[in-house]
Amino acid sequence: FFAEMAASLWKKLFQTTKERILQQRRTSLYVGAHGYEEELIKKKLQQFPGGSINLSKEDNGIGILILNNPKLMNAFTGTMMLELQERVTELENWKDGKGLIIYGAGNTFCSGSDLNAVKAISNSQDGMNMCMFMQSTLTRLMRLPLISIALVQGKAIGGGAELTTACDFRLMTPGSEIRFVHKHMGLVPGWGGAARLVRIVGSGAALRLLSGAARVDPQTALCLGLSEETLSSSDGTRALEEARVWLNQYTEGPASVIRAVKKVVTAGRELPLEDALRTEKDIFGTVWGGPANLQALVRRPKHN
Amino acid sequence: FFAEMAASLWKKLFQTTKERILQQRRTSLYVGAHGYEEELIKKKLQQFPGGSINLSKEDNGIGILILNNPKLMNAFTGTMMLELQERVTELENWKDGKGLIIYGAGNTFCSGSDLNAVKAISNSQDGMNMCMFMQSTLTRLMRLPLISIALVQGKAIGGGAELTTACDFRLMTPGSEIRFVHKHMGLVPGWGGAARLVRIVGSGAALRLLSGAARVDPQTALCLGLSEETLSSSDGTRALEEARVWLNQYTEGPASVIRAVKKVVTAGRELPLEDALRTEKDIFGTVWGGPANLQALVRRPKHN
Amino acid sequence: FFAEMAASLWKKLFQTTKERILQQRRTSLYVGAHGYEEELIKKKLQQFPGGSINLSKEDNGIGILILNNPKLMNAFTGTMMLELQERVTELENWKDGKGLIIYGAGNTFCSGSDLNAVKAISNSQDGMNMCMFMQSTLTRLMRLPLISIALVQGKAIGGGAELTTACDFRLMTPGSEIRFVHKHMGLVPGWGGAARLVRIVGSGAALRLLSGAARVDPQTALCLGLSEETLSSSDGTRALEEARVWLNQYTEGPASVIRAVKKVVTAGRELPLEDALRTEKDIFGTVWGGPANLQALVRRPKHN
Repeated sequence: FFAEMAASLWKKLFQTTKERILQQRRTSLYVGAHGYEEELIKKKLQQFPGGSINLSKEDNGIGILILNNPKLMNAFTGTMMLELQERVTELENWKDGKGLIIYGAGNTFCSGSDLNAVKAISNSQDGMNMCMFMQSTLTRLMRLPLISIALVQGKAIGGGAELTTACDFRLMTPGSEIRFVHKHMGLVPGWGGAARLVRIVGSGAALRLLSGAARVDPQTALCLGLSEETLSSSDGTRALEEARVWLNQYTEGPASVIRAVKKVVTAGRELPLEDALRTEKDIFGTVWGGPANLQALVRRPKHN
Repeated sequence: FFAEMAASLWKKLFQTTKERILQQRRTSLYVGAHGYEEELIKKKLQQFPGGSINLSKEDNGIGILILNNPKLMNAFTGTMMLELQERVTELENWKDGKGLIIYGAGNTFCSGSDLNAVKAISNSQDGMNMCMFMQSTLTRLMRLPLISIALVQGKAIGGGAELTTACDFRLMTPGSEIRFVHKHMGLVPGWGGAARLVRIVGSGAALRLLSGAARVDPQTALCLGLSEETLSSSDGTRALEEARVWLNQYTEGPASVIRAVKKVVTAGRELPLEDALRTEKDIFGTVWGGPANLQALVRRPKHN
Repeated sequence: FFAEMAASLWKKLFQTTKERILQQRRTSLYVGAHGYEEELIKKKLQQFPGGSINLSKEDNGIGILILNNPKLMNAFTGTMMLELQERVTELENWKDGKGLIIYGAGNTFCSGSDLNAVKAISNSQDGMNMCMFMQSTLTRLMRLPLISIALVQGKAIGGGAELTTACDFRLMTPGSEIRFVHKHMGLVPGWGGAARLVRIVGSGAALRLLSGAARVDPQTALCLGLSEETLSSSDGTRALEEARVWLNQYTEGPASVIRAVKKVVTAGRELPLEDALRTEKDIFGTVWGGPANLQALVRRPKHN
């Protein structure tokens, strides 16, 4: 009897956990977490205005997200943090999206947080809430079913460097730099940049980048696997055009298929093998026998 | 009292889970999974005959597995999927085995699924069952205590490209290609190819290969870490001989030791660190003080 | 009611597990594990004396750990295994530490276990206990909040090669070698070397190194990512000086910050993504608004 009850309980608990996990993945990382006061930190951030986060969703399924606060090298004010969250929600709901390019206004990427806001929330509770707020947003950004690029011009430093790691790829213009400057600020990454950096360049290189706080130029970034390619132009408009062409290699095709590709890779990089396999199977199920698949079967009788 | 009961329950549940996990690893990935009808899909696959999967187990502990359906570029018919499962079972039971070379008949590797079979099972339920069937087989192939090579001549495309990722190593002949062509078929990998590819080349390169669907030539494969070496000959017999010589560097020695090496690496790549350490300890226990170890201690009093 | 009870039980069980995990991380890997008799193996190891493990903790926060048994190429005797554990405990308690350099006496690194001790404990139970004892020590070494270097001169073979993988970085002198010679001893790694090697060089390269048992020279080690740099001098004193200079790039700054950097990277490499993010947030909380952070905010009003 005890064994039966245990089995029954287990099943119930297991389902509860599974639902909890799914729920968690649908919403943000810290929703309901002990001590996380999302509404409170949002009110606080509202008090530090300036700049904006602009999104345009183009007909070809490419989103363009601009960090816009050029007089502070696109540092995040409080309201920019709030706007980033809203834009990410908008992108989550954009069912035709296939790709995303993030860049900064004024030919530079992003210098992290606006220090005026930082000084005002340098107490522990506010800092932790801001940290959880930004981690949640960037985790959702990373998991978008869009192939995403950080187009790095000028400087991506501190939180700006962390933001680049929430994208699938980084493209750098000549003369640009990525710099995890946190050590010199008496800090470590808190927006998830360390956890993601380890996954991109390996733990040894991540430790060197974070503990050395050195400028990473495009060539070094390429060698480390932190950047995919050095663009040929430093000019903003032309660099964006190059990034579009680069991205287009990977986003050509039906949105349902491109989005499914991003999803299987997200599962592959986040989950243990058997969980990744099960998720791959589920995603495969969303395209197998679907319109794009049936058309392809008619169009070409052989693979080659 | 409640705490005691909780502890007792926990222990029981934990043991149940542990047993479930062990059981699962011994059998296939989806045995008993909700909605997976192995017998049903086997009957279905039986209806699409053609080609064969041939295995020879040589005295030196090297198995040679041939994908044999040259008129369709060794595409998997239904019966070939069934035969692959049988051959993997045979290899699991081969206690003297140390290595495995997989290659295709007619100087090409494999073009995925036979589209005649695919069209007939393009409904959702059959597709999912086929997907689970192949994932199970390839997961078991990957976990064989044998050092395995996919010898890629000609083309490894679609499911054929996925099959190569279930081997430890890929060796390519000049002019050959690996191509995850799924996007052009309106698909994503479903045989576990995405989950495994992320682990071989990293998530960035995996995303590029899957969303770009580009041909990967031997040189590019080497750079990505998708291939270990480009062989010098494109001729089938000579390429096989080269692959044997390459493999021999790693399989020389007692089967018990070579198999244990593969097992510790399998644990290292699949499990979280602490679980991998515990498994390494258990596998170490199977060779420590064993015949090969004791002989080595007698033979050479010092390591150097 | 049942659902409520399940939820309550779940919470209790979950807390118990969480505490168990935290407890485990604070102590050693196998404390309380079924069959692990730490006191028994310590008594046994005490019977095989010779050599020493010497630690000096310098004022600049750099620890120097010397493997000292030069007549046996610094092979680990029983008492050296015991001393290594004591030194690791000392390093865990050193709150001002930032870095660690491990090297061997007599211009060579370490040749693994002293075979006299090995022969005496070649029975299964002793072997397993020794294995768990060394795994525990090396796991604690790896997790120290210090940036650690294995300075490889001469040979690092067998267990010596495994020891290098418990450090964050490996620097090699010209002519030195790392060699996982286990196969030739009829063994596989048991000190955690396989699990860690897979994480450093990937599973393919790890399988080649372990099943091939080949000498890895400095150039090959660089290519594989097993070594960070080849030093210019083979001379012991000068090589140590070079290692100090190399390490200094990464340890300059307040101990609290350097230690926090190592901790976020440790979390990033050991934990699943969401757990790593939560840990990063907690570690961020230890430096945010701390003395080094506040000073930096005063010193420089802008990041750039």
